[in-house]
Amino acid sequence: MTEITPAPDANSPVFLAHEGGKLETVPTKPLRDRDDLSLLYTPGVADVCRAIAVDPALAMTYTTKRNTVAVVTDGTAVLGLGDIGPVAALPVMEGKAVLFKHFGGVDSVPVCLETGTVDELVEAIARLAPTYGGINLEDISAPRCFDIEEQLKERLDIPVFHDDQHGTAIVTLAALINAAKVTGRDLSAMRVAIAGAGAAGVAIANILERAGIADVVVADSRGVICTAREDLGPHKKRLAHDTNPRGVSGSLGDALEGADVFVGVSGGRVAESDIERMAPDAIIFALANPDPEVSPDVAARHAAVVATGRSDHPNQINNVLAFPGLFRGALDCGAKAITEEMKIAAAEAIAALVDDPTADQIVPSVFDERVAPAVAEAVRRGV
Amino acid sequence: MTEITPAPDANSPVFLAHEGGKLETVPTKPLRDRDDLSLLYTPGVADVCRAIAVDPALAMTYTTKRNTVAVVTDGTAVLGLGDIGPVAALPVMEGKAVLFKHFGGVDSVPVCLETGTVDELVEAIARLAPTYGGINLEDISAPRCFDIEEQLKERLDIPVFHDDQHGTAIVTLAALINAAKVTGRDLSAMRVAIAGAGAAGVAIANILERAGIADVVVADSRGVICTAREDLGPHKKRLAHDTNPRGVSGSLGDALEGADVFVGVSGGRVAESDIERMAPDAIIFALANPDPEVSPDVAARHAAVVATGRSDHPNQINNVLAFPGLFRGALDCGAKAITEEMKIAAAEAIAALVDDPTADQIVPSVFDERVAPAVAEAVRRGV
Repeated sequence: MTEITPAPDANSPVFLAHEGGKLETVPTKPLRDRDDLSLLYTPGVADVCRAIAVDPALAMTYTTKRNTVAVVTDGTAVLGLGDIGPVAALPVMEGKAVLFKHFGGVDSVPVCLETGTVDELVEAIARLAPTYGGINLEDISAPRCFDIEEQLKERLDIPVFHDDQHGTAIVTLAALINAAKVTGRDLSAMRVAIAGAGAAGVAIANILERAGIADVVVADSRGVICTAREDLGPHKKRLAHDTNPRGVSGSLGDALEGADVFVGVSGGRVAESDIERMAPDAIIFALANPDPEVSPDVAARHAAVVATGRSDHPNQINNVLAFPGLFRGALDCGAKAITEEMKIAAAEAIAALVDDPTADQIVPSVFDERVAPAVAEAVRRGV
Repeated sequence: MTEITPAPDANSPVFLAHEGGKLETVPTKPLRDRDDLSLLYTPGVADVCRAIAVDPALAMTYTTKRNTVAVVTDGTAVLGLGDIGPVAALPVMEGKAVLFKHFGGVDSVPVCLETGTVDELVEAIARLAPTYGGINLEDISAPRCFDIEEQLKERLDIPVFHDDQHGTAIVTLAALINAAKVTGRDLSAMRVAIAGAGAAGVAIANILERAGIADVVVADSRGVICTAREDLGPHKKRLAHDTNPRGVSGSLGDALEGADVFVGVSGGRVAESDIERMAPDAIIFALANPDPEVSPDVAARHAAVVATGRSDHPNQINNVLAFPGLFRGALDCGAKAITEEMKIAAAEAIAALVDDPTADQIVPSVFDERVAPAVAEAVRRGV
């Protein structure tokens, strides 16, 4: 049986924008004649190699390692498309590199790996790490992404950052700081229900707790994650232990009972009847893309503040508010890791750029040019 | 004991030319507003990912894979510096990328790997290969480089090319074609002695034989490689079998007895008394850099044509005459490998650009803009 699929529309704006790829590698030094050649390449280059062999730290002055981040994926969890493999993931990684350069002045290069076991991927990434000043992990499926990141952080002396986890978590915290202000709440006293226990859900739960929010309940597709559940893998077991202080069990609806905040990072749908169970003047972040867990219109009937991942609604929770500035700051100060303190400082810096938060503006625009410098400054202070 | 090494002179032309590194990654598409963002990144990019997931060949139209070559090393045999490691090798790989772009319009990115066994390196390179349209191996020590290249060629469906082997071999053959003309010799009837049985020596022996030169004798640091020797590893054993039809044994001097051509790719010194043993009007290619095996002045006393690897003497045998055009051609036509036929066609194309070869001009200038297009055309014809 031949599978018939429609050919892409080569004249559509999206395909036209991708023609030829979205990046090029450009020399920064002139190559005009033999003299230039002998400086940039042999024999001159040998002096620089020798110097770095003696003092590897000089690579941060005299090579691209200084300012280059690898955007690494194995294509197992690309956007909402799932496991489409490394080559099909490349357009996303290129897009990420465009954003890194545009917003943070960071040179970044896609690295799309054939997938494998956690150990195989860690091995491959660790082996290529000397080339780069940092590693941005992207679109790697959970729970593998947790182990891969943890093992790489232990092995490497450059920042390793899984953006689907921590980028989302930082911007969510930033938005929540301002949503609390808008609704007159004390951040740490809020009850938060999270739908989704993948990369983003776990990282959001962690950062919120570290930011002082004690009452966080997470639900996956089978219901609330609690210590009573016997179907949990090691990462969700840890989550059950670290969250849910009131011992809620049951469905997401039960987690939403009296909740001040709903954060959706699941891609599943949430019924209006469950949203109705939230506290008055609720805060709803329905971040699944392109289809939020609750449509913004429905959410607005029950919430004082609504945010989504979409650019066509107010309050877009977009990782681009975080990652360019984070790596900019980390590269600038030679940070060997992006710490928990840096992440929270970054979230606070993003939130602080909104002078007077309102229901329709709890985060800065992604095109606000103050964002990346402010995040970078927060990271540099945090070292 | 503290090792005291002089700090690099930050104001020297070489270090100034390397400040900040020699490459940057630049977006090729404008990112002006939310509309651009939604084309280059989510949600638009998902359409391109989906299309490539269905038809991976579309990556050659809509991604950087189309025009990007990885310059891969483990830093074990960098220039004449030896095993200086991946980070210290980075300036050379960046320089190579500058040349790829300048001469061939090829985007290339350095990939400097922690070294390991042949299997570990093959595994790492194969895992990251989906990102690229080709792999240029560089400065990997022999004999590991032979096995690594062979295994990768078997596994991958993109061109894999070890430049220290084949780039040098192609340009050497090109130069020899014209040196034969200058000295009125028949190419295939010449006797050739090669000093050095590393990456370059083995590849030069191979390409010369494939180009019809039957009488090639190779010597390593222990003497002529012949079937009688019992100290040979598998690669040199194969070389002993494939070369040396007259069964020469003894020293390099014995190989030079009556030789028409000397090719030095060893870095060792050759005594004038050995050079004296060559045929009249000899051809001497002393390619070690920066110190040729025979100084050009001494060589000129015995040879009709002298070439070196240096830019300050006539007849510079420089790989840059080959690799940019080779990959340009291979990427243009979607070649899955760079074949033996393509290499010989490339050498003939380079040689043919010198209209009227003389003792002082057997190869085109590296800045001759006709070179890369001519090589690319030869490769495209060879598919």
